[in-house]
Amino acid sequence: MIDTEKSSEIAFAESAQDHVQFDRLQQLLRELAMFGGRDDGGVSREALTDIDLQARRFLIDKARSLGCEVRIDDCANLFFRRRGLSDLPPVLTGSHADTQPVGGKLDGAYGVVGGLEVIAALNDAGIETQRAIEVVAWTNEEGCRFGPGAMGSSAFVDPRRLTEYRKSMDATGMSFGDAVDLALKAVADVPRRPMAEQMSACVELHIEQGPVLERAQVPLGVVSGIQSVRWYQLHLTGSAGHAGTMPMEERTDAMAAAVGLAHQFYDYRVRHATDTLRLTLGRWQVSPNSINTIPGSVTFTVDVRSVDEQVLAQFESAMNDMIRDYNWAGSIAVENLFARPPTLFPDTMLAVIEQACERACTKALLAPPMRLTSGAFHDAMYLADQCPTAMIFVPSKGGISHNAAEETDPRELFLGVQALAYAVTILANLPLEK
Amino acid sequence: MIDTEKSSEIAFAESAQDHVQFDRLQQLLRELAMFGGRDDGGVSREALTDIDLQARRFLIDKARSLGCEVRIDDCANLFFRRRGLSDLPPVLTGSHADTQPVGGKLDGAYGVVGGLEVIAALNDAGIETQRAIEVVAWTNEEGCRFGPGAMGSSAFVDPRRLTEYRKSMDATGMSFGDAVDLALKAVADVPRRPMAEQMSACVELHIEQGPVLERAQVPLGVVSGIQSVRWYQLHLTGSAGHAGTMPMEERTDAMAAAVGLAHQFYDYRVRHATDTLRLTLGRWQVSPNSINTIPGSVTFTVDVRSVDEQVLAQFESAMNDMIRDYNWAGSIAVENLFARPPTLFPDTMLAVIEQACERACTKALLAPPMRLTSGAFHDAMYLADQCPTAMIFVPSKGGISHNAAEETDPRELFLGVQALAYAVTILANLPLEK
Repeated sequence: MIDTEKSSEIAFAESAQDHVQFDRLQQLLRELAMFGGRDDGGVSREALTDIDLQARRFLIDKARSLGCEVRIDDCANLFFRRRGLSDLPPVLTGSHADTQPVGGKLDGAYGVVGGLEVIAALNDAGIETQRAIEVVAWTNEEGCRFGPGAMGSSAFVDPRRLTEYRKSMDATGMSFGDAVDLALKAVADVPRRPMAEQMSACVELHIEQGPVLERAQVPLGVVSGIQSVRWYQLHLTGSAGHAGTMPMEERTDAMAAAVGLAHQFYDYRVRHATDTLRLTLGRWQVSPNSINTIPGSVTFTVDVRSVDEQVLAQFESAMNDMIRDYNWAGSIAVENLFARPPTLFPDTMLAVIEQACERACTKALLAPPMRLTSGAFHDAMYLADQCPTAMIFVPSKGGISHNAAEETDPRELFLGVQALAYAVTILANLPLEK
Repeated sequence: MIDTEKSSEIAFAESAQDHVQFDRLQQLLRELAMFGGRDDGGVSREALTDIDLQARRFLIDKARSLGCEVRIDDCANLFFRRRGLSDLPPVLTGSHADTQPVGGKLDGAYGVVGGLEVIAALNDAGIETQRAIEVVAWTNEEGCRFGPGAMGSSAFVDPRRLTEYRKSMDATGMSFGDAVDLALKAVADVPRRPMAEQMSACVELHIEQGPVLERAQVPLGVVSGIQSVRWYQLHLTGSAGHAGTMPMEERTDAMAAAVGLAHQFYDYRVRHATDTLRLTLGRWQVSPNSINTIPGSVTFTVDVRSVDEQVLAQFESAMNDMIRDYNWAGSIAVENLFARPPTLFPDTMLAVIEQACERACTKALLAPPMRLTSGAFHDAMYLADQCPTAMIFVPSKGGISHNAAEETDPRELFLGVQALAYAVTILANLPLEK
């Protein structure tokens, strides 16, 4: 329930929320989806490809038409700034406009388009905010053309990372650095901005990419944090041999060992960590991979995630014990590929997001928002290292994402942007510590 | 011990055996290994490649220099015939001259060269046999360039199979039929012979490709038969999904199911059939095979072999039960790729081979021969459908084959050809039916 004796900040936030337009949002989503749009409804717009550069030009023109000042940084992150009354650090929103090789219309794009719709709503409502509001389109969140993902937000927060990122190669042998330089050259009319500039707060609006909200029949999610993750690669080395001639007791079968170990990992999860550990053995390479040859080597990856860092530490310790104790004649090497502790968004930010979502849901006569954890990485993960950050989720039909079939009910997309408008306006008028 | 009052047949066989020459055998093995020879000691001579055609020309010239009549059939199998005194069906020996993409000097080649050395020994000994002796070089035993393997012997025994075989394609899109036609054209001077012609007996000399003889420190093996084999391919279909966002209880993880099933298969073998079942899960395909995506589908092959057909029937029944009872939300389809019952060589043939091996071993003051089963397929498997057939094995160092490191002690290679000379001479003089 909204207090009838509102502060002016809340009145501004409600007005911004009420000026979000359903049709204008849908229109801009459709227009952006035409860049790389596919017959099956999906979008193919990998980072810094020609079609991504065309989409960037489209967004620049759109932002300028909304009165925004457009700037770009050394990682080709694009910023659309709506001026504030003060020179306090701006409030940041937005997401990324690149997609998987075959992605949907919404992953990333929704957050960028949603940010521009917030600016349009503020314009329509005639609201001026204390702080500037910046909508960002981060470079290369997906990480499919150039690894790792979320390069743009990561480099913005810590520009020293850019040196390494620039060396990353795509499948054709082009470096990320060269691709960034081409992207910068293509928008020579856009002035450069410094990286690592302090933001006062950041809110990222995104589709959930999982089934939690849909299952709960809740249209908006207040994201309390992002799971911690650890990635490993296991290399099992045995001996290849003829499937017909090699007696069982003489074999050092790398697949038999891999299956034995993997079975122990799955079993560990069921016995010790049913609800708190997500375990995926996603990528496998078998050599020589022939029907009548005993596998001589097997490599597979282990992706574990949890909201509780301790659960991952326990798994890692148990995994290393299982590997050490595995009884066979071959060898097993463990490679640590990646690790990131959990991201916990601050309570002050969650309170603002919750308030924003509640008003949108209440007005639409829908279920109130729920809190949930993000299983996927997002640019907000890196921004949380720099400023108070939070995220809003809308449901994904069937939990499907990274797929042409990715979909969200348009009314839920509308509610998400309404919540974003409220939250951004509150934050842009809050007298937060610099 | 050799009877001092020998029949003339035994005296001829012993004389043939005693005329086998160590150096001439080594020389011809070396010469053939130069066609496709590699710096690492291996040989790359896939079926009907240019280098294989050059090796065939070399063998034709060699056979002619030994006085053989050379003929070729519609599957490009090459036959080198030493005339007999009668027109009774000939005794067949030989093997194949093609190799794996990277094979050794001996797999196949040893049986062909050994056959030619037997003819040289008979020539030197001035022995005429009742039946002709034919040395064959079968086409495409390995099955790596064109599938399946052992095409030449299979088509010779049942020429109707050639129609299908001719359609088999290599990786460049060339058909086996076109490759055969080119091979026939390259030896236009060689007259054609009919296929499916009756043979009176067949003996194939081959390296073991397994560790049994070496482990037993026995130089010669009397092969009592070839294991039965069944090949399956399992297709597990679940749902791909984001490794971070999809809760464990909502997953239909095809790799978790594949590991669970594979673990049951390996466990079944340990519990029910330790000594009698060979189980290999050799070829795996995972989709989308990405570190942070739940596998949506997994395909893997099951190769089971046994000397006891009943053991395979029991495994198949148990496997189908395990698949039916596997508790998950996805689907599992089983494809039967291949099945072949065991090949049991007749006792009369085993007695001849045993006698031949015993004399060679006794004269060399080495351990007597042992009987063993072949774990690998051989051309002899198909010939056994047509005439009394048997095989002689010599040890493979470390059981290694299909590898540049394939090796056998030259003295054992010599003993093997001595045994072959004895067996072939006995069989060529026996008054066998028709």
